[in-house]
Order: sequence, then C-alpha cells, then structure tokens
Amino acid sequence: MIALSLIGIGTGNPDHVTRQAVDEINAVDVILIPRKGPEKDGLAHLRREICARVLRGPGPALREFDLPRRDGSGDYRAGVDAWHDAIAEVWAAELAAALPRGGRAGFLVWGDPALYDSSLRIAERLRARMRLEVRVIPGITAIAALTAGHAIPLNTIAAPVTITTGRRLRAAGWPPGSDTLVVMLDGSNAFQHIDSEGISIWWSGYAGMAEELRIAGPLAEVASEIVAARALARARHGWIMDIYLLRRDCD
Amino acid sequence: MIALSLIGIGTGNPDHVTRQAVDEINAVDVILIPRKGPEKDGLAHLRREICARVLRGPGPALREFDLPRRDGSGDYRAGVDAWHDAIAEVWAAELAAALPRGGRAGFLVWGDPALYDSSLRIAERLRARMRLEVRVIPGITAIAALTAGHAIPLNTIAAPVTITTGRRLRAAGWPPGSDTLVVMLDGSNAFQHIDSEGISIWWSGYAGMAEELRIAGPLAEVASEIVAARALARARHGWIMDIYLLRRDCD
Ligand SMILES: C[S@@+](CC[C@H](N)C(=O)[O-])C[C@H]1O[C@@H](n2cnc3c(N)ncnc32)[C@H](O)[C@@H]1O
Ligand SMILES: C[S@@+](CC[C@H](N)C(=O)[O-])C[C@H]1O[C@@H](n2cnc3c(N)ncnc32)[C@H](O)[C@@H]1O
Repeated sequence: MIALSLIGIGTGNPDHVTRQAVDEINAVDVILIPRKGPEKDGLAHLRREICARVLRGPGPALREFDLPRRDGSGDYRAGVDAWHDAIAEVWAAELAAALPRGGRAGFLVWGDPALYDSSLRIAERLRARMRLEVRVIPGITAIAALTAGHAIPLNTIAAPVTITTGRRLRAAGWPPGSDTLVVMLDGSNAFQHIDSEGISIWWSGYAGMAEELRIAGPLAEVASEIVAARALARARHGWIMDIYLLRRDCD
Repeated sequence: MIALSLIGIGTGNPDHVTRQAVDEINAVDVILIPRKGPEKDGLAHLRREICARVLRGPGPALREFDLPRRDGSGDYRAGVDAWHDAIAEVWAAELAAALPRGGRAGFLVWGDPALYDSSLRIAERLRARMRLEVRVIPGITAIAALTAGHAIPLNTIAAPVTITTGRRLRAAGWPPGSDTLVVMLDGSNAFQHIDSEGISIWWSGYAGMAEELRIAGPLAEVASEIVAARALARARHGWIMDIYLLRRDCD
C-alpha cells in the first residue's frame, strides 16, 4: 500500500509553504521531483530549494525524474488524456522503484493541487492500477499571489468571479455572468482579443517570486505594455508564468 | 505613517499558516484581533491560538476589539457600505491608539484576504483618512481547503470555474458558462433551489478544521443529508462555515 501526498507549495516564493506542507514533506519516505518543459531548470531548482529549506534531520529521499512531453498536435483533450496516461506510467514506475514494500511518497505541486494541475487526475489513474491512498495538502494559488501583490480584492462585493484559461478567453470571449475574470495558462496574450472598453487589468508575471512583475490599469492603455514586458521577461528568463485579473468597471 | 499588513491565515487549521505569514506576524508591532458575529468566541479564539503558536520571543502586542454588526435591514449593498464605514471608523481609532507615533500593524484575515473579505475595502477607506501603506500576505482559501479535503480538482481539464455566493445562486440560478461552481457565504442551502439533474456536489463544513464534515454525491441523493448535517452541526457548535462545489456531469 502506498500513500501519496500531493503537497501544494505555493507559486514560487519558498515562504508560501504552509506548516502543514512542511510537516508532510518531513513525514514522507520519498519526495518525487519531476523535471519538465521549458521551465525545467527553474522549477525543479525551486522544488529542491524548498526541500532544502524545510527538511529537518535526514528527511525523505529526493528522487528526480523526467516527465514525458505533451504531444501538441491533434485534438487538445485527447492529447491531454494520452499525456496523462504516459505520466501515470512514469509515476507508477517511480513509486514502485522508490517504495518496493510500500510507504509514503510526496509530490510537490505548484500552487494548490486542485487548480489547473494534472496531479490529481494522474493519481486517479494510478488508483486504477495499484493500492493507493491520496491525500492533498492545500497551497497558495497563483490567484492569491496575484491579488496579494496588487493588494486588490478578487471579487467585488458579494459578486461572482470566473476563473478561466487564455485559450478559452480567446476562443469564447468574456464568459457571461461575471464582471471579474481571472485568466491563467495564457501563452498568447488573450486579453488583446476582447473588447477593452470599460475593462481594467491587473497583470503579474512570476507572482510571489523575487522577479515579480506587475502592471495594472485600463486594459486599452496598458495592454501593449504588458505584451512587451512579457516578451522581454520571457526572453530574459527563458520562461514566464503570468496571470491576470480583468474587471469590468461597474459604477 | 502606518503600515498595515492583512495576513491570510487559512481557514481554521492553524497549520494552514505560511512561513510568510509567520514572519509577518512576528515583524509587526501590534496585531489587531476583531471579535464579531455568532462565531465570535470560536474565531477570536483561533486567531489567539495561531498567534500563540507562531510568536517568537516577546513579539507584537495583541489588541482585541469589538466590531460593529451589520444592519441586515434595507438594501444589501447600501447596508454593506454603511457597515464598512463603521468598521473603518473603529479600525482608525484602534490604529491611532495602538500606534500613536506610527509603526506596523497586522490584521489576521480568515483564508485569503482577497476572497469575500472586507478588510481590503476597509483599508481602502482608511487610506482616504490617514497615511497608510497596505500589504497583503496570501492565505489558503476555503476553496483550497474544500478541494483538498475531498481530494478533487477544482476545474475539469482546461475548463472555467465560477465562484459565487449562496444568495446569488438562489436569486440568479446556475450562472451560464461554467460547469463547475463553488458556492460560499450560503446561509440557507441554496443548492436546494436549483435543478439537481446531472449535478454532483462536494460539501464541507469547517473545512480544514478538526471538526471537518464532508458529504459528496449526486445532488439529488445527498441534498437532504447535507441540510440535516448542517443544521445539526450548527446547533452543536453554535455556528458553521460551509462551502461546496457543484459540478455538471459532462461525459
Ligand atoms: C498549470 S497551472 C498551475 C496553477 C497552480 N496549481 C496554482 O494553484 O496556481 C500554471 C498557470 O498558473 C499560473 N501561475 C502559476 N504560478 C504563477 C506565478 N508565480 N506567477 C504568475 N502566474 C502563475 C499561470 O497562469 C500559469 O500558466
Ligand atoms: C467571509 S467569507 C471569507 C472567505 C475567506 N477569506 C477565504 O479565503 O476562504 C466566509 C465564507 O467562506 C467559507 N469558509 C471560510 N472558512 C471555511 C471553512 N473552514 N469551512 C467551510 N467554509 C469556509 C464559507 O462559505 C463562509 O461563508
């Protein structure tokens, strides 16, 4: 029997880590650290740094492994499904190798494990093939890091908020029903493709991290500044993670 | 000059507190602890407990104060505005009394300060009357505590999520555009007033706390169980905080 803890570690600030996460990191037998994609070095490095800072005594073994990459061609949903299958394959092999007689494994998840993250879905697949107990430790989300950096509320008084992706905003436009929109996973400045009239934006790159960048203002006025800052930062660091809040001016 | 830190402390589990929050609590000169509403004792107690657990050395002074209560009669928005004005009045007096020559004050905010919380709006009002610098420390939200407890993802793959209130769900029904809905601030089981066909619910009371209650299943099957559990828990503890996720079965 293997107990797998998906441990939210926040969005790049090692001090986002909670006491619950620290305790869990110290309680497991092994921590699995994936390496993937373009931010490969930056993020694996951060996971290692967090472990180094919070581990007490000898602590769990750290085990790094490479993740398969997603096949970007073809249908998006099907591509993601196949990719998750491939990742589950790798996780199963890593868990079996690390814990041949069972035990506890920890997996450090960026931000909160519930938010636009595949690890819960992969754990679900693993449960179909091995005895696995899954435990989730909540983490600081990029949404909370965004609003904290700008010192703004997420919602207007008692009003709804919709969280969506750049892909979706671009394809479907402003979703009905909410005057506040949080956009994540936007690789191509989707905010340029909506009507900017009466919309304000609060944008953060590397929210919560030492490199944090913030730009805010009426969308029509700051959109091109964001596009330029994003391109520059991306060129400089080799990768960027950014997020933004759009609000329709209501009063 | 006063620096006011709004410090997210998570949703009732003292171990939700982040290292950043611990450092901030220890760095301020005074911590303001409000007492309010029906959960008065429970929540003020928890804030005191968190302080006791994280304070190093002598630490900041703790200063408790009573908050005015909201006038529930009349227009909701206007009532909230007047209430925020009254609270700002009290905060200004407390800050002036605690820090006559300026300094740093901390205010412990339930969950994350950006999410359905008035402290940022009150700080905004204070900035109109005194020199005030506002800093926000992000926290674990009730949403993350809900999904962690049930070990479920917030979103389905790459799909949007809408966060709303019980009042709103009851008045306006299921908002268009999202198949996942998170409902907060629901004092009256608003899930009973939507068409339950094809909807699943994940409900938590006291999410993240020792008393955590969880019920999940097809809405039509578990709705009455939730209503009963909620009433029982509320009677037993004198107060309840609950939150739920509704998902339209898609496949
Ligand atoms: C795969 S999702 C993971 C989200 C994460 N689980 C969370 O709770 O925030 C990655 C997206 O989150 C956002 N994100 C994560 N960390 C960020 C950061 N430090 N600054 C800005 N955006 C971030 C970006 O929109 C990015 O495209
Ligand atoms: C005024 S809002 C504050 C939300 C908080 N700022 C956050 O980040 O979660 C209070 C609402 O949050 C939800 N909530 C807060 N703590 C909770 C808990 N421990 N369990 C369940 N729901 C909670 C409930 O829906 C409650 O009505």
